[in-house]
Amino acid sequence: MKSRTTTLTVTAENRYAFLDLTDDLRRAIKDAGVTDGAAIAFCAHTTCALLINEWEDGALEDFRRHLTDLVPHDGVYYAHDDFSIRTQNLNPDERKNGHAHVKAMLLSATSHAIPVAAGEPAFGVWQRLIFLELDEPKDRSITSQVFGD
Amino acid sequence: MKSRTTTLTVTAENRYAFLDLTDDLRRAIKDAGVTDGAAIAFCAHTTCALLINEWEDGALEDFRRHLTDLVPHDGVYYAHDDFSIRTQNLNPDERKNGHAHVKAMLLSATSHAIPVAAGEPAFGVWQRLIFLELDEPKDRSITSQVFGD
Amino acid sequence: MKSRTTTLTVTAENRYAFLDLTDDLRRAIKDAGVTDGAAIAFCAHTTCALLINEWEDGALEDFRRHLTDLVPHDGVYYAHDDFSIRTQNLNPDERKNGHAHVKAMLLSATSHAIPVAAGEPAFGVWQRLIFLELDEPKDRSITSQVFGD
Repeated sequence: MKSRTTTLTVTAENRYAFLDLTDDLRRAIKDAGVTDGAAIAFCAHTTCALLINEWEDGALEDFRRHLTDLVPHDGVYYAHDDFSIRTQNLNPDERKNGHAHVKAMLLSATSHAIPVAAGEPAFGVWQRLIFLELDEPKDRSITSQVFGD
Repeated sequence: MKSRTTTLTVTAENRYAFLDLTDDLRRAIKDAGVTDGAAIAFCAHTTCALLINEWEDGALEDFRRHLTDLVPHDGVYYAHDDFSIRTQNLNPDERKNGHAHVKAMLLSATSHAIPVAAGEPAFGVWQRLIFLELDEPKDRSITSQVFGD
Repeated sequence: MKSRTTTLTVTAENRYAFLDLTDDLRRAIKDAGVTDGAAIAFCAHTTCALLINEWEDGALEDFRRHLTDLVPHDGVYYAHDDFSIRTQNLNPDERKNGHAHVKAMLLSATSHAIPVAAGEPAFGVWQRLIFLELDEPKDRSITSQVFGD
């Protein structure tokens, strides 16, 4: 059984931008030389997410609107952003992103386990691996770990 | 280390129906001949979900009600269903299912990674693998990929 | 390829308490002797969750508040807790926890698949593995299944 890990750096253009990572996942599977097995897609961050769904601009916009209605980024108090009381994990350039932590925990979309068959992710016809930036854009590491024969 | 992939087709009776797939997962593990390892349960679709929770009619009904309150299937605008503007991924028989895409992305319940011990999924006493149809019923492919010794 | 399963029992101090399990996951990886591979973290229960996010008291409190606003534990009818009609899965000491089942299904945070590199979980700088109790505190089994070379 082979195993290979690939780390990709992506940067969204703005907050709430989506990026299609399906072809990157496909390439990681090819590079691993695995025909039958599985792939783990893992997002090494706490204010963004990996989704598996259809890439249709309307559906993505619908999701963005619902998510920001459920967890607004302003007009709501976030203790994480209250620098008058917060003492933990403070950076010199700390930004207000309490809303993005809440969204990320609500989605719980940090990892996916995806079967691999015939050297391809065993996705249904409409499934794509989609990165969603919830915070101000920054470089993000996405790891694909592929294993199998 | 052995690895075996099983694909099952399921069809719910109606929108928001739940199906208990625990015995199908058990059978896939037995057929793989794996006693210690792991199983990936994967839903190859964008408008349904796989849950791991208790099968109790009241709890499932409670969840259905909360989910449809959070993301209603009517009375709300979905760009995915606005065929006056949409141009991508259009089928001749396109149906309005924007709500189901939003629900599926919110749940992010496309895959689960489940330890296998003594030839069984290492589920707690109340855990069941449960399929939830979010769209109009259609044939759905659920893949179990089992690996281990 | 090696594979090793470790089961840990944890007990929160109260409902909605968080516990940091990152060091337990690290220890399970060390004990498995795996340097490159993956770990599955699995919660064998239906009314608690495993999150991967930042451990900052404010962010965790923000999440708890949003989650209990979305799915309140009182003032709302739960069929799961209506013992005048419920017939399934009844224990002599059955407690009202319908809200916790709904929260757990909404989060869908029963398992995570985490790459392992250099004998460590391939977490980003702020990522921690966090247990969240949604019900009255009780003993909870968390399984780490580590595999790789």
